[in-house]
Amino acid sequence: MSAHSHDREEGLEFQPKFDASGLVTCVATDAASGDVLMVAHMNDEALRKTIASGEAWYFSRSRKGLWRKGETSGHTQRVIEMRMDCDQDAVWIRVEQTGAACHTGRRSCFYRKVNGDDTRLSFVDAERLFDPEKVYRK
Amino acid sequence: MSAHSHDREEGLEFQPKFDASGLVTCVATDAASGDVLMVAHMNDEALRKTIASGEAWYFSRSRKGLWRKGETSGHTQRVIEMRMDCDQDAVWIRVEQTGAACHTGRRSCFYRKVNGDDTRLSFVDAERLFDPEKVYRK
Repeated sequence: MSAHSHDREEGLEFQPKFDASGLVTCVATDAASGDVLMVAHMNDEALRKTIASGEAWYFSRSRKGLWRKGETSGHTQRVIEMRMDCDQDAVWIRVEQTGAACHTGRRSCFYRKVNGDDTRLSFVDAERLFDPEKVYRK
Repeated sequence: MSAHSHDREEGLEFQPKFDASGLVTCVATDAASGDVLMVAHMNDEALRKTIASGEAWYFSRSRKGLWRKGETSGHTQRVIEMRMDCDQDAVWIRVEQTGAACHTGRRSCFYRKVNGDDTRLSFVDAERLFDPEKVYRK
């Protein structure tokens, strides 16, 4: 292992390892239930705004812009704890989620499970907490 | 929203959305504690082997190869449940982790937390369960 990667893994300096697009992966879990709510991305600015404000900010790859979680829907995420992984290319935030994390209206984006036969999914915890047609005025 | 993306979000067909490298992101959480153990990637073959075997397989971007979790260390992951996210580019697996998930010897890869001042990390749950120098014979 190089000295540089050893330092990134064992050191206490915050040195996020951004990918070619300038992003790290962020996993948000529900601080109460432990469920994974969503997987999204943060750039340097989103990381800094999240740390400074205590509310989750992301970078949208499709819209190519910074985005405060809940800015349209009101369904914000208050960050209880933020952790970095070994090589600092992934972030885990434990959050207090207001309402629903998923743009489809579900509490979590992970509302379907994979069954053993690998071709069909089943809904699980898939009730909608809001109507996306109304919230996002599509 | 296109009919295709609506189908991917609301349908029950398993249709993972691979990135340009043929990968989806996978978050593995500890089925007992709810802690995030690691974030890694799966290609089509890793997904299929995971589903078929009930043990986690990943695709290593650095080694450019398929990898059964624990094949060197013995620290395997038995999959209790697998879920897909809304747009099917991320997978969440709840696992029974044998030993430690992280190659550094920690239970989880997320053994450092970010403090408010954004420049220094702190160790948390960072005790090693094994010595990586011995397990991987570096």
